[in-house]
Amino acid sequence: MRRLRDVGEHAWIAALARRLAARPADRRILVGPGDDAAAVRPGRRPLLVTADALVENVHFRAGWAAPAALGRRAWAVTASDLAAMGGVPRFAVLALEASPAMRTADLDALVGGFAAAARREGARLVGGNLVAGPHLAITAAVIGEAVGPLVTRAGARPGDRLYVTGALGAAGLAVRRLAAGAAARLPDPPRRVRAGRLLARVASAMIDVSDGLVQDVGQLCRASRVGAEIDLGRLPVAGACRRALGGRAAAFAARAGEDYELVVAVPPAREPALRRLTLVGRLLAGRPVVHVRAPDGRVVRVARGGFDHFRR
Amino acid sequence: MRRLRDVGEHAWIAALARRLAARPADRRILVGPGDDAAAVRPGRRPLLVTADALVENVHFRAGWAAPAALGRRAWAVTASDLAAMGGVPRFAVLALEASPAMRTADLDALVGGFAAAARREGARLVGGNLVAGPHLAITAAVIGEAVGPLVTRAGARPGDRLYVTGALGAAGLAVRRLAAGAAARLPDPPRRVRAGRLLARVASAMIDVSDGLVQDVGQLCRASRVGAEIDLGRLPVAGACRRALGGRAAAFAARAGEDYELVVAVPPAREPALRRLTLVGRLLAGRPVVHVRAPDGRVVRVARGGFDHFRR
Repeated sequence: MRRLRDVGEHAWIAALARRLAARPADRRILVGPGDDAAAVRPGRRPLLVTADALVENVHFRAGWAAPAALGRRAWAVTASDLAAMGGVPRFAVLALEASPAMRTADLDALVGGFAAAARREGARLVGGNLVAGPHLAITAAVIGEAVGPLVTRAGARPGDRLYVTGALGAAGLAVRRLAAGAAARLPDPPRRVRAGRLLARVASAMIDVSDGLVQDVGQLCRASRVGAEIDLGRLPVAGACRRALGGRAAAFAARAGEDYELVVAVPPAREPALRRLTLVGRLLAGRPVVHVRAPDGRVVRVARGGFDHFRR
Repeated sequence: MRRLRDVGEHAWIAALARRLAARPADRRILVGPGDDAAAVRPGRRPLLVTADALVENVHFRAGWAAPAALGRRAWAVTASDLAAMGGVPRFAVLALEASPAMRTADLDALVGGFAAAARREGARLVGGNLVAGPHLAITAAVIGEAVGPLVTRAGARPGDRLYVTGALGAAGLAVRRLAAGAAARLPDPPRRVRAGRLLARVASAMIDVSDGLVQDVGQLCRASRVGAEIDLGRLPVAGACRRALGGRAAAFAARAGEDYELVVAVPPAREPALRRLTLVGRLLAGRPVVHVRAPDGRVVRVARGGFDHFRR
């Protein structure tokens, strides 16, 4: 079993660059992995740029997910930021921090999972960096293109409706179980690049649900200078979450993070034509406060939810 | 004294985004920091993309450099990869891992140092990410443009001459002293974007000296399928290094890392018109081996030098 300390940084990168270069040529890639930088040929559209990270013992613990699933996840959480603006990912670079004792087969699987997930959404891994460290940390930067309207967090108006894609709560439930030492499978984040692109045609504002619906809608509200009301009874709660938590499932799903679904504000005159999209609330004039309304009509306090890396 | 755990991830990012947005508007930046992704308007030239990282206890230890100097360094080591291809940096995203106990003033200074160094070379910090972690890790992704010929590591031919910019050994000496607990100042890496752009007009291949001259020339040789000979007596050894190490200075400078100077291969028919450029050797036909020749003409063994993150 070969480990990073046996192979070394340079030999591992050279082997990876050869494998990535062996794929069918892509005319957009002028210089691929293995040189000082990658050179790519963009289209004539505006570029979108973002970076995100998965850090061991922060976002995951050893054994929570297979290396390939971690790679897919690193891709998904980063591409999700582009999806939330209506952008389409094109190129990615991957900066890895790994222990010298890490098996090279695991690191290969991680990068392979990332590269495969990127290709499935039309993007290519074109470069990166590898350093030794005490833990595994995966930082991805993704470059995409705005193929249609650019949707920020800042365009929502009072009266706009709030929709969410897919279902919420399954990832948060898995994280809670895994953190407690129970068996659970951390689900792969959904692929929402296509949905984001379609929603961008009608959206006034959009954000992805990474830190929890209530918190992320709060971000959208602050950027747009509006308030919001979310109807707990309308929330698309994931089946696993509903089965596990029963009557408390919707309140849990409203503040669970890691879903990587899209929340989108749509003016009432427009109608989003997308399956698996659920109306969950509306935007209000006034302070950027998110009110959560229970099925009986009362406004409930959802415990200050969501994720902040430095405040627990 | 405010620390990250007092301020929180979201409030810190919001304040930073406001400060960065307060700068004079840049028409290339359609959406700046603080949204899901940044949107930028590139030129019509090919793009260069690269990522690099500085990790605490790997690349530096606490106290080795002021936070602003660390930020400038993170910029420089990443931009150096673009300089080594003749590219010009345009946009950067910064992914940070930091301890909750880190002073926000220090993190502000770090990001400020990065952003200021980027601006000095014509680029803008347009986004990033912040996560909690046990140590400080700074990952930067830089996007640039190829304004002239693209120079990879792979174009060198036997007979080409090897030149190096600036002087070698000062950074390696400072790292050695600091690691031994002595007082030393880690020098800011040189700015070589302009030099790289000028050298790209005559170069057949180019690389930056990050892991040590002998090792990085070895990378260029493997990519170009040539050998190399370096004349130790010609090496531009930094004054501090020569004073400290005397007769051993050149051999030390040949394998010290962290210099971030450029090594460039130039066909004999072309003449690089650049000050502070030193002819240090030539490329040879044959296996990709780097021979180091002492002033008396003997080929010496320079101890397997340079840096590999996983082999010490």
